[in-house]
Amino acid sequence: MIDHTGMPHAAVRGVAIEQEWMVAETTYEPDLTGLLIVDPYNDFLSEGGKLYELSRETLESLDVVEHMLQILAAARSRGIRVFIAPHHRWRDNDAHLHWKTMPPVQASAYKNRVFADGTWGGSFHPDFEPIPGDVVALEHWMSSGFANTDLDLQLKKHGLRKVIIIGMRANTCIESTLRFAAELGYEVTVIKDAIGSFGLAEMDASLKFNMPAYANAILSTKEIVEKLSK
Amino acid sequence: MIDHTGMPHAAVRGVAIEQEWMVAETTYEPDLTGLLIVDPYNDFLSEGGKLYELSRETLESLDVVEHMLQILAAARSRGIRVFIAPHHRWRDNDAHLHWKTMPPVQASAYKNRVFADGTWGGSFHPDFEPIPGDVVALEHWMSSGFANTDLDLQLKKHGLRKVIIIGMRANTCIESTLRFAAELGYEVTVIKDAIGSFGLAEMDASLKFNMPAYANAILSTKEIVEKLSK
Amino acid sequence: MIDHTGMPHAAVRGVAIEQEWMVAETTYEPDLTGLLIVDPYNDFLSEGGKLYELSRETLESLDVVEHMLQILAAARSRGIRVFIAPHHRWRDNDAHLHWKTMPPVQASAYKNRVFADGTWGGSFHPDFEPIPGDVVALEHWMSSGFANTDLDLQLKKHGLRKVIIIGMRANTCIESTLRFAAELGYEVTVIKDAIGSFGLAEMDASLKFNMPAYANAILSTKEIVEKLSK
Amino acid sequence: MIDHTGMPHAAVRGVAIEQEWMVAETTYEPDLTGLLIVDPYNDFLSEGGKLYELSRETLESLDVVEHMLQILAAARSRGIRVFIAPHHRWRDNDAHLHWKTMPPVQASAYKNRVFADGTWGGSFHPDFEPIPGDVVALEHWMSSGFANTDLDLQLKKHGLRKVIIIGMRANTCIESTLRFAAELGYEVTVIKDAIGSFGLAEMDASLKFNMPAYANAILSTKEIVEKLSK
Repeated sequence: MIDHTGMPHAAVRGVAIEQEWMVAETTYEPDLTGLLIVDPYNDFLSEGGKLYELSRETLESLDVVEHMLQILAAARSRGIRVFIAPHHRWRDNDAHLHWKTMPPVQASAYKNRVFADGTWGGSFHPDFEPIPGDVVALEHWMSSGFANTDLDLQLKKHGLRKVIIIGMRANTCIESTLRFAAELGYEVTVIKDAIGSFGLAEMDASLKFNMPAYANAILSTKEIVEKLSK
Repeated sequence: MIDHTGMPHAAVRGVAIEQEWMVAETTYEPDLTGLLIVDPYNDFLSEGGKLYELSRETLESLDVVEHMLQILAAARSRGIRVFIAPHHRWRDNDAHLHWKTMPPVQASAYKNRVFADGTWGGSFHPDFEPIPGDVVALEHWMSSGFANTDLDLQLKKHGLRKVIIIGMRANTCIESTLRFAAELGYEVTVIKDAIGSFGLAEMDASLKFNMPAYANAILSTKEIVEKLSK
Repeated sequence: MIDHTGMPHAAVRGVAIEQEWMVAETTYEPDLTGLLIVDPYNDFLSEGGKLYELSRETLESLDVVEHMLQILAAARSRGIRVFIAPHHRWRDNDAHLHWKTMPPVQASAYKNRVFADGTWGGSFHPDFEPIPGDVVALEHWMSSGFANTDLDLQLKKHGLRKVIIIGMRANTCIESTLRFAAELGYEVTVIKDAIGSFGLAEMDASLKFNMPAYANAILSTKEIVEKLSK
Repeated sequence: MIDHTGMPHAAVRGVAIEQEWMVAETTYEPDLTGLLIVDPYNDFLSEGGKLYELSRETLESLDVVEHMLQILAAARSRGIRVFIAPHHRWRDNDAHLHWKTMPPVQASAYKNRVFADGTWGGSFHPDFEPIPGDVVALEHWMSSGFANTDLDLQLKKHGLRKVIIIGMRANTCIESTLRFAAELGYEVTVIKDAIGSFGLAEMDASLKFNMPAYANAILSTKEIVEKLSK
């Protein structure tokens, strides 16, 4: 019998030593926890955005934008600080014109001029515009909100070691941000119906096979809002 | 119509500027390329290893160990340097006994005493023992061979900016190492039948949905051996 | 008039907003603070060590080893966890034989076979041998205890964001570890008579010109022991 | 007898194995080398800048701005790509208002509103405005151009592993950028009369005690221009 990390339960049960962190449920102390919103751009989240036709299935079937808003409100009420991790915005004469190489996902974003700086598509969805006290991290070039940015620094400077992740795109930016966060030592919660992707298949695979290995909790919006309201 | 990165082809075709890196096929110059073998432990790869029953399906159906050997031999013949990225070995009184938290995949490895230091299971499969000139990176705590180790430094110190990745485990360590490598600026090739996992389903999902976004090439053993033999 | 960071006091006084962190004295809560001992090798600290003739002046005139011991004892009494950041140990057939380049300080260490693995010189000074519960980070290749190691991860996993730094060598490893710690978001205290160097001149320059820019506190052993004893 | 890294020459001479990198002089191939200009702001470099009175002594006695220009011209002629590493610009409602702590050098910059965004002082000196093809890295929060930015990524994406460093401020940003570059695996050259500081004393100490440990070459402007002109 196999548990959700792919390790045999029998062996697990056979080990006497059980540390606190093996059984403890994640808690959400405002002085330890940040809400991390990944790539809340109009191009992803708003009808008419360059990628909206790709996002539509997951966003609409799961009511993702509404869920993101509920979590944002619950976090603000609870005094949990908000961090936005924005993808690199396409710019004219862009710095990566002369790069030796590019991963496919990045080449596509470049060619499609996704999240173009100064345009509506490259602006945050109006409901996720930062307010004073929110932290907008430096733009990440590819998928992880932590890679080549100040996100880790910002979290540490606020004394935080737990993050709740919502936003776009489930199996790329969300999963990469989760993987980096876990490698960097953070305790991560992913909200499964406050993330979207380019189709349910890729998102379901990520939620089934990969995220349970790295996230300390995978919750619904209803569950996290309840936990934050206590 | 959608290309394999999930971006629309139409938009791609509509963009006049095509950089060299958008169309170029990956090449494998020995002075720019390293072969990266992830976690070639007996516990993963050898009959009797703690995780072998979980690995068996993918390893045996794809002939993974044999393919890894063919690629290793081709890389050595071509003068491509070999790097081993080893997972943290379980040790008594282990340093993470007092950690505040742990991702599930790491808690499982800890509880199961996987890759125990000084044991056969925590030793490299005999065919992948390093020889003089190979580089064994520092042990990684979780999944990415780059996180909290000297792997990026070692590759740079040898002047390399391309890596070929083989080994274990497809959707965890291999995919995390790929994601980190791509974020760090490397041009990555994954060999799809020289990696294994705990079942074809999780491995197929990783190869279908995630790896094509980050890998510049996903090749078979036959294909990479041919390219390295030219 | 210039303050110790090289910025004009007048301007400082002219700014109305004063954040708490601008005036607050560093405190040493055991659940937030780690003691970081850098490179406590016999080659550095013990009569007969390969570098002891170079270290002798600072170590003996400042009573550094005795001070390090007092701080270690005070930290243990206070329940502050101990971290050792060890320099790369020289090994035969060393992995960096084929590196393209090396900074001078590293080339010297390599040529002199400093901290040779398995020798007395490459062992910790007996008074600084780790005990159960101490954390020994991965070996750093050059000067910063954080570069290419798991030290940042280990501190985060224990929930710490403040470090007290002692050990060797003032203007290289100590100062680099301080600079990296500050960039990574830690609040750093350096103990000025529990660090040594290869002469008072280089150490004094580091303490006068550089460390005050990055350390939130520079204290004597007497001062830190008092603070830890409260 | 002691060499410039503080290690004994006698021991060095006693070691038979001499690797190429131990004796080789640094060379400046355009496809491997970048010119890195650190913090070329008016506040630092231009009469009337907020920090110019502090910079004046070193800038004027060494003719730093003129030297920086000569090196920039020589680099452009040689086809060496230019990278600018800019310090964080002060902004109203700045993100670090709520940080738990700050190193003194950063608190001072904050309080003095140094490099204020949108002002002349926070603009690049007109002679160092980037031109198409130059790369402007993400803003660094404190001293190292590499910390919490994309500078390492940008250098790698252009296939570079050597950097020439010029700009401000010798013992803080220049030295931190040098230390980080060396830890990250780069081969570094510092130009000793194309850097400035807040007084010759702190700059001389950095050049005498610290930079020789990490820089593969410390050259004058005359020397680097000659090497780039060949």
